[in-house]
Amino acid sequence: MTKQFLIEQIRAKKSYLCVGLDTDPALIPPHLLEQEDPIFAFNKAIIDATLEHCVAYKINTAFYESHGLEGWRAMEKTVNYIPATHFKIADAKRGDIGNTSTQYAKAFLQQLPFDSITIAPYMGEDSVKPFLQFEGKWAIVLGLTSNPGAADFELQDLKTESKRLYELVISKVATWGTTDNLMFVVGATRSDEFINLRKLVPNHFFLVPGVGAQGGSLEEISQKAMNKDVGLLVNVSRDIIYTSKDTDFAQKAGDKALQYATQMRSYL
Amino acid sequence: MTKQFLIEQIRAKKSYLCVGLDTDPALIPPHLLEQEDPIFAFNKAIIDATLEHCVAYKINTAFYESHGLEGWRAMEKTVNYIPATHFKIADAKRGDIGNTSTQYAKAFLQQLPFDSITIAPYMGEDSVKPFLQFEGKWAIVLGLTSNPGAADFELQDLKTESKRLYELVISKVATWGTTDNLMFVVGATRSDEFINLRKLVPNHFFLVPGVGAQGGSLEEISQKAMNKDVGLLVNVSRDIIYTSKDTDFAQKAGDKALQYATQMRSYL
Repeated sequence: MTKQFLIEQIRAKKSYLCVGLDTDPALIPPHLLEQEDPIFAFNKAIIDATLEHCVAYKINTAFYESHGLEGWRAMEKTVNYIPATHFKIADAKRGDIGNTSTQYAKAFLQQLPFDSITIAPYMGEDSVKPFLQFEGKWAIVLGLTSNPGAADFELQDLKTESKRLYELVISKVATWGTTDNLMFVVGATRSDEFINLRKLVPNHFFLVPGVGAQGGSLEEISQKAMNKDVGLLVNVSRDIIYTSKDTDFAQKAGDKALQYATQMRSYL
Repeated sequence: MTKQFLIEQIRAKKSYLCVGLDTDPALIPPHLLEQEDPIFAFNKAIIDATLEHCVAYKINTAFYESHGLEGWRAMEKTVNYIPATHFKIADAKRGDIGNTSTQYAKAFLQQLPFDSITIAPYMGEDSVKPFLQFEGKWAIVLGLTSNPGAADFELQDLKTESKRLYELVISKVATWGTTDNLMFVVGATRSDEFINLRKLVPNHFFLVPGVGAQGGSLEEISQKAMNKDVGLLVNVSRDIIYTSKDTDFAQKAGDKALQYATQMRSYL
């Protein structure tokens, strides 16, 4: 998906919501467990109910891999079910030496029809570049994450003379691609850093996890990190998909997605 | 596998060789492509031929994921085929927020019978800890990798007052686990740093990739990084598994593995 098309979708829907499909059989409505493929049955219903309120879906690959072959099959069915109007993110946090990253890029951007994949940049340029070689496909590189451990190599010890680690990472990774094939993951719980981040990369899209269950504020993100193209995809997973465990779960998820989209509309 | 058992295997075989199964259908002998599952057919033959010369196998998950469901199935069959005498490494470079890392740990240490998984530590403590909760299972955390990009966040800009990034990472990660459930990945191409690394973590096992195709020296590694328990698993992938494209490929791979093991024996 091109940047232009993504922006058009956001403008048309007045939403920059991404729905995260962290689908866990232990948390889905029990009546679905009787189905042949409970994970896909759940995802399909959630996608149908949330489609008009969001512009993207993020599939957290860990939740599928933990079920082995069955899980991989459910992931494949899910990504193929998402229509071409929606930006498809493999939240896979991959990254390895060049020839191995090339294989991961094939796995998610060719073998599976994802538009993008999240990347851990720790191994440097040759680990990221193979993901930037596909027309209309994106690498979404970890910048500053939303979890407590994000601070472990960041705030305590690694203030170099002028830059924090995440600043170095984002500035450098930005030179490896363009605003048409590179986004950054910036956790919603780190809103104190948003203004600083926007100075570093004013024109890139940010994928922002951490709203909802992790406690990030949609209002603060939107005020501090939006740019002229909107430039945000805000992901909500658990707070949307697990709203109800009854037969009305999909409708409840749709209602919740609409609430987020309505809130977003007020910031646009 | 316990540390004690692993050391016993190394002592008994006088080898600390790990064979890397980076199996790529484009590089395997063409006659195997007629088989129902060429990747597994290749791996099975390689395992049979190298088993007595090595103590570990490393499966590079990217090479399996790039073939989708078929690839995942081949990985499952391969890891199940490796006998319990051999240490099984999922070279998956995973790592995410706590609840997601828990799913990855399930995927590789429970759903699949790997002894260990490689971890990217960029997201900090809560991204690594879920992999340390399984008796007899190991997290192998990226310390200093063997690829060119390893220097991107390391040597050029990030010399803090006292420590380089990799020193900080290794010192801190070492406090999260023990020498019984934590190893570090240290690239063979960085042998100038080995003595320094051994000072930081004298008792941990190192998984050392980069010998062979990437040019690292087995002699230098062995001289500089061996400890009283040997403390090394040296991985060779391409230089062993792709020695021949003919019907004798497995025998040739076995011969090459024996060469490495013989060299190792001279260092023990």
